[in-house]
Order: sequence, then structure tokens, then C-alpha cells
Amino acid sequence: MLLTDIIQDEERIFTGKAIPDTYRYDEYVGLTDAIYAVALPKTKEEVLELVKFANKEDLPIIARGAGTGLSGATSPVKGELIIDLHLMNRILDLDTETMTLTVEPGVLLQDIQEYVESRGYFYPPDPGSKHSSIGGNVATNAGGMRAVKYGVTRDYVRALEVILANGEELSLGSLNIKNSSGYDLKDLFIGSEGTLGITTQIKLKLIPLPKTSLSLVAAFPSLREATDAVLTILKNGVDPTALEFFERDVIELSEKENNLKFPSQKGQSYLLITLDGDDFESIQRRVTLLEASILPHNAVELISLTDPLLEETAWLLRDKLLTAVVNYTEQVTLDESVPINHISTLYQYTKDLEANSGLKMISFGHAGDGNLHTCVTRGDITDQTEWETKRDEVLDLLYAKIKELGGLPSAEHGIGIIKKRHFEKMFDPNYLNFMRQIKKVFDPDGRLNPSKVI
Amino acid sequence: MLLTDIIQDEERIFTGKAIPDTYRYDEYVGLTDAIYAVALPKTKEEVLELVKFANKEDLPIIARGAGTGLSGATSPVKGELIIDLHLMNRILDLDTETMTLTVEPGVLLQDIQEYVESRGYFYPPDPGSKHSSIGGNVATNAGGMRAVKYGVTRDYVRALEVILANGEELSLGSLNIKNSSGYDLKDLFIGSEGTLGITTQIKLKLIPLPKTSLSLVAAFPSLREATDAVLTILKNGVDPTALEFFERDVIELSEKENNLKFPSQKGQSYLLITLDGDDFESIQRRVTLLEASILPHNAVELISLTDPLLEETAWLLRDKLLTAVVNYTEQVTLDESVPINHISTLYQYTKDLEANSGLKMISFGHAGDGNLHTCVTRGDITDQTEWETKRDEVLDLLYAKIKELGGLPSAEHGIGIIKKRHFEKMFDPNYLNFMRQIKKVFDPDGRLNPSKVI
Ligand SMILES: Cc1cc2nc3c(=O)[nH]c(=O)nc-3n(C[C@H](O)[C@H](O)[C@H](O)COP(=O)(O)OP(=O)(O)OC[C@H]3O[C@@H](n4cnc5c(N)ncnc54)[C@H](O)[C@@H]3O)c2cc1C
Ligand SMILES: Cc1cc2nc3c(=O)[nH]c(=O)nc-3n(C[C@H](O)[C@H](O)[C@H](O)COP(=O)(O)OP(=O)(O)OC[C@H]3O[C@@H](n4cnc5c(N)ncnc54)[C@H](O)[C@@H]3O)c2cc1C
Repeated sequence: MLLTDIIQDEERIFTGKAIPDTYRYDEYVGLTDAIYAVALPKTKEEVLELVKFANKEDLPIIARGAGTGLSGATSPVKGELIIDLHLMNRILDLDTETMTLTVEPGVLLQDIQEYVESRGYFYPPDPGSKHSSIGGNVATNAGGMRAVKYGVTRDYVRALEVILANGEELSLGSLNIKNSSGYDLKDLFIGSEGTLGITTQIKLKLIPLPKTSLSLVAAFPSLREATDAVLTILKNGVDPTALEFFERDVIELSEKENNLKFPSQKGQSYLLITLDGDDFESIQRRVTLLEASILPHNAVELISLTDPLLEETAWLLRDKLLTAVVNYTEQVTLDESVPINHISTLYQYTKDLEANSGLKMISFGHAGDGNLHTCVTRGDITDQTEWETKRDEVLDLLYAKIKELGGLPSAEHGIGIIKKRHFEKMFDPNYLNFMRQIKKVFDPDGRLNPSKVI
Repeated sequence: MLLTDIIQDEERIFTGKAIPDTYRYDEYVGLTDAIYAVALPKTKEEVLELVKFANKEDLPIIARGAGTGLSGATSPVKGELIIDLHLMNRILDLDTETMTLTVEPGVLLQDIQEYVESRGYFYPPDPGSKHSSIGGNVATNAGGMRAVKYGVTRDYVRALEVILANGEELSLGSLNIKNSSGYDLKDLFIGSEGTLGITTQIKLKLIPLPKTSLSLVAAFPSLREATDAVLTILKNGVDPTALEFFERDVIELSEKENNLKFPSQKGQSYLLITLDGDDFESIQRRVTLLEASILPHNAVELISLTDPLLEETAWLLRDKLLTAVVNYTEQVTLDESVPINHISTLYQYTKDLEANSGLKMISFGHAGDGNLHTCVTRGDITDQTEWETKRDEVLDLLYAKIKELGGLPSAEHGIGIIKKRHFEKMFDPNYLNFMRQIKKVFDPDGRLNPSKVI
């Protein structure tokens, strides 16, 4: 049996030199040739055959979605057969009675959002990468901007169909809302980064689309005041949909990059807030609550972005923060989590690291979740070796501090290959050991995405 | 080493004839003498020593909370050491910044509710048994009345400290809100009914207490119309906190039992609905939406229970439904789940079973979650063997139908011992096999709650 017996369409099999660079290269891992082949199945049956083929030939496998992942998790390391699922991209069913959407794993997030919103439904998870696949979102348990109110991908996965390492199929979850029937295996697979199984079908929970929303910008003299205000906002029941924070200096990078002006030019730190709801009054009431929540924390202004153009500008500048940093200089961007009362302590620590190392540290993130994106950037350091040495030192210190604060190495991007070393240092060896044993239960030969996560 | 070396307080160790009946008897399982001893630790250290003792003596262990469980999961089967955790009942910390409550497992649900609500916080899960322990709630993933809006126990567990079968300790989860760092082991332990570990500490997520609420009764000519209305209510974004259904005949049992009148005497089927929110306007708006949602389904009346006495009466009659059924006749009560669009199909099937078997079938439940409580009751059958035979036949048919509709054997009470047979028939053998392997990973000797769940 040859790969070409399974997939006869030439354009859906790549081997040797014909393998496009996109499969070889990862920004964080670099270039590699360690690929057996790339196959692009269009059906579950083809995936099954590919997995059986890999078993016969004793090949490791990487499941791949849209390849937007930020942890090097689809980077080949030992001659893998890459199963690229992005052609399995059909929306199979919208069940309006149970409010469930059934999709193949390759459907892009933006296509799901468009499809359901045009029909009055809402799929809340909203990571920045709208061109990522839902299979990838599930495999990384993606979070995004609306998690503070609506939760993350995990909270919207009702059921999964997976193919296991040995080619067996397994159904996880159901259309039922409540479940106390046995162990929760579904949640093991969510966020497992392609190491336990290959997802071939997903049932997503939808909710009714909120009828209206309003974004606002609150400006503060300092980040501590902004993040203290976050605690008050949450406690007062303002119930924000988005609660993003960033500093003047990083928004300035984005302003330059995009040739646009952020709605507020006052203060040093900003919160970009969205409120949604079913009527204007409910939002107005919460705006009043928001005002009362930020005043004690010395907010210098609160701007309602009622002008759609202003709202769009503010969000575009926010969405492009990472790109602005990337284009500004070499960097490593984290997606760490800390308990939300420790955001400003961690931020202050990055500033100390900056002062001691000469690297420039940039911070923004999802303040309502305690999910920061700390960017360790090259700054003015010209020598390559100096940058690399200092970068690694700073990363070690940073992850140690995150651990000390009770934080986690990844809030939403996954461990993949690039955070593995830090993950292993931060977690109890016993916990890691149980993870390894669970990996063995589902994938005894270590065939699926080897060397990733654990 | 003797048990009395570990717990020197005589009143916290029971052996032989001194073991109180409450540990020997379960309504669904019957009476047993298969108990090694009962120990009531007050500290984690005592639990650790007890588990080590059990290892040395090769004894099986049952962790027990308040003993209110409805699936026979604390019923001894092979001479277990029962570790009763209800004296580990301290509320350890309320962290207002992260809105987290840290408790020992023996704290009663009602004590948690009272403690947090008097301080402006809200712990939403609300199973009927307010005298159950939070450790038991976590171990059964309890649901309750408010799940339709706020989710179940699982959704409020931030972290667990557990002691494993071999006496090792393991931490699961953290104070972080988002997490994509490795496999989700915490969710394996939630709902595992004491078969994977003994919980000694729990961190619960709290939310701000809603400022106001209103309950309403909607009356319908038939159950199909009531449950069809449920779909419309959910789709229209009425966002109910509670959405309970029951029929005229079962509320009549409760009326008699409690010598009270239900607020509505019209129609055959009722929805008891609660709306909560932060102001009166938001609730008023949703009442209008509710009216618009039930009218197309031929609602015969909608009563706002603005009179606190009326509201209390309605909820008391609802809360006592099960007790009313139990006192009316011998019964087995299920806690099955079906996709919410299948409630009335399942209900109709129970009526067919009733017609064919002569047993009386009573239904009520959490309509917003597709979670029914079907009571298979003895009705007018006088012969004991006939009742038992018919009961078991009807249960087999009922669970087969639930499976056919894509439902689950337990939505919120757990599998325990009494649903095990049905659970095993309803689930894919492969799924059960993975559960067994995971059990082995954490409890290779099968020491914890043997013969339960799987
Ligand atoms: C500009 C940008 C902004 C971003 N912003 C956010 C954000 O705000 N919040 C957030 O959470 N994330 C964010 N991300 C990360 C994003 O969530 C991930 O890139 C995305 O979820 C990965 O999807 P993918 O289809 O590209 O998966 P890939 O990159 O192809 O794969 C990612 C992982 O998923 C596995 N996988 C993919 N498909 C399957 C499948 N069918 N079965 C099993 N395993 C599979 C792979 O093996 C790999 O481990 C951002 C990324 C970018 C590039
Ligand atoms: C009148 C009544 C109404 C109810 N209504 C509802 C409802 O509306 N919704 C709902 O979901 N449930 C309902 N229930 C069920 C209720 O949720 C359970 O009875 C309760 O969660 C069990 O708690 P417990 O402390 O009594 O546990 P127990 O009965 O003592 O134990 C139950 C299970 O939990 C395990 N366990 C207990 N403590 C621990 C621990 N510390 N570590 C590990 N395992 C442990 C036991 O081994 C056992 O498997 C109702 C029960 C009653 C009696």
C-alpha cells in the first residue's frame, strides 16, 4: 500500500522536495526537513486509512489545522507523516433546537463566526487568529478576547469524533447539556495539541447572538491602577465581554505601524472594554457601574466608542499589537497566566528584568483573565549571541516568577515544543508522570505528535 | 499500627456492632454488614494516615461526604474502610480579589451558600440536597436548579487537592482562569464518585451575587407544548436561571403532602421559571420576551410570583416533588439526560410504558437542561414480585429509549452502583475500556470505591 493508493489526487500528497516550505518552517523552531510526507485528506475515511498506513510503516503523525499555532506544535521533529486537515472544512449541520453546530475540523473560525452570526446565533470564543481552524482551536483550547464573559473553546465543545493512534474511532461527549455518567474523557482531548487523537468532527454549543454592544476605552496613569480597576470591574458585576489591557508604549508601536491614532492619548495604561447585551438600557446601566468602578483607581478618562469608526480603529490597533511588536524587533511572546490579582506584580517584574538585562519588555493581554502576553524583545542589543543568551536567561527568570505567583506557562496557545522545558520545570513531576501514563493509555507507541507537550 | 493510633478520639472511629446504621443502609442498595470500619478524620494528615493504613492492611476505601447520594455510591460492598469526611468542614479562605472560596470537603452546600451570599458573592450550583457536602457535590458533578444559566459544579471548581489510592498527594487546577498547559486532569476527578482520589481541599469560583430575581409560573395544556416553549425561551435569549417542568398530577401529590396550593390551577403542565439580574428593568424586559416565547405554544396563563409567599409556596412544592413521590409509593427515580429537543418524546414513551405495564410513571425535571427525573412507581400493583419484575423490565426499556435518543443515564447524580448495569449497556465498550485504564493509572490496585461506576 502506498500513500497514493489512499489519496489518489496528486495535489493532496506531497513528498520530498515537493513539500511546501510552510510545512517545514516554524517561526519559533526554524526550518526542518524531517518530514515523511504531507497528506491532505478530505474525508474521515481517508484519515483512517492514513493512520493505518502510519501504523503499518511505523511512522509518527502530526495532525495539522491551519498552521497558525504559536507553540511550534505542528513542527516536524522525526520524519512525521503530516495529516493536514484544512480541506475537511464543511459545516455539516446547524441544529437550531439544541443550538448546536456540527463541523469538520478544518473549518476556519471566521467562517463559523460568519455562518452562525448571520443566522442569529453566537459562537463566543474569539482568538485573534480568525484564519485558524476549529480543530486547532480545540486542540489548543484557544481563548481570546471574550473569554472573561463567555469562557474558552473548552466551554463550547459538546462532542468530538476522534481517531486514535491505532486507527480506532472514539466518540466523546454528546448533545446532552448535563453529564455525570463516568469519567470526563472529552476534556482530556481538548487542549491536548494533537497528542491523544485526531479530531475529525466537532459539535459546538451556540448561544443566542447578543443584540447590541458598546466598546469603551479607560485611560489610567499607570498599569497598577488599570489592573486594580479590573478587579473592581469584575467584582461590581459590570460583566464585560472583553477587558484588554496595554500600555501607551505598545499602542504607539501599533499606531505607527497602522498609521492610525488610538482614541485616547491621555494616561499611560489603557483598558479596552466591550459590554454586550440585549438592549441599550442594560448596557447604559453597566456603563454607570463601570464609571463607578474605575474612578477610585484614578482613571483619567473614559471614552464610549459610539462612533463605529472609532470603535473599529481601537480594536484594529489592539488586534495588531502582536504584529506591531513582531515588526518592531525580534521577540519571544509568552501567553502566560497568573491569578488576576498578580498581573501588576508580574508586570513590575518584567520592568525590573528590562532594567537589568537591557532587553525591552512589552506587555499587553486579556486582563479580565489574568492572561498576559509578555514580549521579550531584542531592544537595542546588536550582538546576536548576547541577545540569545540574555533572552534565554530572562525567559528562565520570567517563568520562575510566573510559577512563584501561582501562574501557568500557557493560558491559551498551548505548550507545543517551545514551552515544554518551562512547563516541565513549573509542574509537579507527579502530575507530568500521570500525563505520560494517560498519553500511554491512548497512544502506547507514542505515534501522535511525538516530543510535543510532554 | 491500629486505626486508634491514627485517630485517638473514640467518637471518630466505629467498628463492628458500633457502626451506625446510616453507614450500613442505602435506600436503593439495602442493608449490609460488609464494613471494616468507619473513620472520621478532621485533618488531611489523618486522611493520609488512614489511606496508608488501608494500603498496609490491603483494605478497600470509600470516601463519604454527607451520605445524601442517590446512586448507592457510598454503599459498602466488600468490607471497606469508610472515610467519612463530614468533620473536615472548615471554610478556609475567601479571596475577594480572585473571587475564590477555599473549603474543606465536608462543608455543607447550604453553609457555603449562606457564607458567600451574606458577603455579596454567589456560588450558583444548587442541587436540591442543601445538606450535601461540597466534596460529594464535586464527586458527583452535581447540577441542580440553576444549571441552565450558570452551569454545574464542574464549572465552579478551580482547584482540588486529592489524596490518591497509594497515599500520595496531587494538586489539580489552580487560581488561574485560563489554562492550556498540558492535559486537563482536574476534570477527570470531578464526577469520578470517589473512584480516583479522595478530595481534601477545594477552591471554588464565585461570581457577584445578582441583585434581584423574579419567579414565574407558566401553565400549558400539555407537556409537549411546555417543552416546545422551553426551546423558544432559550433561543429568544430569555436567559432563565431556573426552568423546571412538572405535570399537574405530580404537583397535586406535592400539594396534598404539603397541604398547600400551587399558584396555578389551570392547564396540565407547568414551567416554573426564575429570572435574575441586576435591576428590575432587565428582568421586565425578559418577562416580555418570555411572554412572547410562550404564547405561540398555547400557554394558558403566566403568573409573576411577586408575592414572596406565593414564590416560596411554588418553590417549596417543587422542591418536595421527589419526597411527595417517595411518600406516595415505592419508586425508582432516574436522573437521565436527553438532548433538550427530545424531552417530550421521552415523556410520551414513559406514558406508553405506563399504559403497557400498569406501573405509574411520573415525570418532572430541569427542562432547560434536558434533565428529567422519571419516577418509575409501583402504582396499584400489589404483588411484590410482579412489581419488581415489571420495574426492571420498564427500566431496561426506558434506558434503551434514552440511549436511542442520544441521552445519558445520569445527568447529575452519578452512576454509583445502581446505574452501573445501564451505564455499561449505553456506552461504547471502547469508552468503558479507556475509563478502566484511567482508573488503573490512578488506582492500580482498585482500592478506591471498588465496584462503583465501572
Ligand atoms: C495573530 C495570531 C493571534 C492569535 N491570538 C490568539 C488569542 O487571542 N487567543 C488564543 O487563544 N490564541 C490566539 N492565537 C493562537 C491560535 O488560537 C492558534 O493559532 C489556533 O488555535 C491554532 O489553530 P490552527 O488551525 O492554526 O492549528 P495548527 O497550528 O495547525 O495546530 C495547532 C495544534 O493543534 C493540533 N491540531 C490541529 N488540528 C487538529 C485536529 N483536527 N486534531 C487534532 N489535533 C489538531 C496540532 O497538532 C497542533 O498541536 C493567535 C494566533 C495568531 C497567529
Ligand atoms: C432530596 C435530594 C435532592 C437532590 N437534588 C439534586 C439536584 O437537584 N441536582 C443534583 O445534581 N443532585 C441532587 N441530589 C443529589 C446530590 O447532589 C448528592 O446527593 C450530593 O452531591 C452528594 O453529596 P454527599 O456529600 O451527600 O456525598 P455522599 O453521598 O456521601 O457521596 C457521594 C459520592 O461522592 C463521593 N465523595 C464524597 N465525598 C468525597 C470526597 N471528599 N472525595 C472523594 N469522593 C467523595 C462518594 O464516594 C460517593 O461516590 C439530591 C439529593 C437529594 C437527597
